[in-house]
Amino acid sequence: MTDASAAFAARGSHHEVEEGLAFAPKFDRDGLIAAIVTDAEAGGVLMFAYMNAEALKATIETGVAHFWSRSRGALWRKGETSGHEMSVVELRVDCDQDALWLRVRVAGTGAACHTGRKSCFYRAAPTGPDALGAALTPVDDARLFDPAATYKTS
Amino acid sequence: MTDASAAFAARGSHHEVEEGLAFAPKFDRDGLIAAIVTDAEAGGVLMFAYMNAEALKATIETGVAHFWSRSRGALWRKGETSGHEMSVVELRVDCDQDALWLRVRVAGTGAACHTGRKSCFYRAAPTGPDALGAALTPVDDARLFDPAATYKTS
Repeated sequence: MTDASAAFAARGSHHEVEEGLAFAPKFDRDGLIAAIVTDAEAGGVLMFAYMNAEALKATIETGVAHFWSRSRGALWRKGETSGHEMSVVELRVDCDQDALWLRVRVAGTGAACHTGRKSCFYRAAPTGPDALGAALTPVDDARLFDPAATYKTS
Repeated sequence: MTDASAAFAARGSHHEVEEGLAFAPKFDRDGLIAAIVTDAEAGGVLMFAYMNAEALKATIETGVAHFWSRSRGALWRKGETSGHEMSVVELRVDCDQDALWLRVRVAGTGAACHTGRKSCFYRAAPTGPDALGAALTPVDDARLFDPAATYKTS
């Protein structure tokens, strides 16, 4: 396997990384970079995952979001099982180039979460002086598909 | 120092973590959890950082975003130097409770990035069959404040 990180620019100076236009993503000690995924139309955060260089390269070349599955230890074309593929409308990188933001359109029911919800962020934690230890509150937690039927093992 | 992680629920079963209402954030081997910050009104991603248990506890109790600065190795009340504090409108957690999403209102000029921009994500990477290795494109990269004046060392 070739080293997919060779597809990206070498890390330059602090100033070059922040102000330059060379794409020099920083992969951590595990070879991963954080990837935030938002709905290109509605704007909310759909999911959070990690990419390795191979996943980022595949995402750029195909325009479809790929990640690195830490639980499976494998390249993961999001939606390959459920049909909820993510078309990348825009890919952005942050100031120090160690985080990515993907604005996407989700295929199928539009659900991004394996639990069947649109977003993985379907619970809110209260804040305030007395909120520590309080229970979570469900938010937008309707299921758009039945995960038991979608991910059934044969 | 007391262990701030004791302020949160113990991790239960896979089902309890995903479907329950106990707030049981998962801190990684460095004691950190990913935190995505978006603009509560406009909806875009402003920044990405990490919290340790102490930062999350402080965020919940004060309603103002705190992070863990990996570069400084210290609790970081965002905006303490620049005046761009972040009031938390809503704090959400994802399905497996290893990522947080904060919807915030930014004080001062409204800039979240230390470079002076509103968002840290001020550059886009092209996607498509021939896009690998292409230069970044500036997006919404106007500076709302002058970092040289704001962060000057005395």
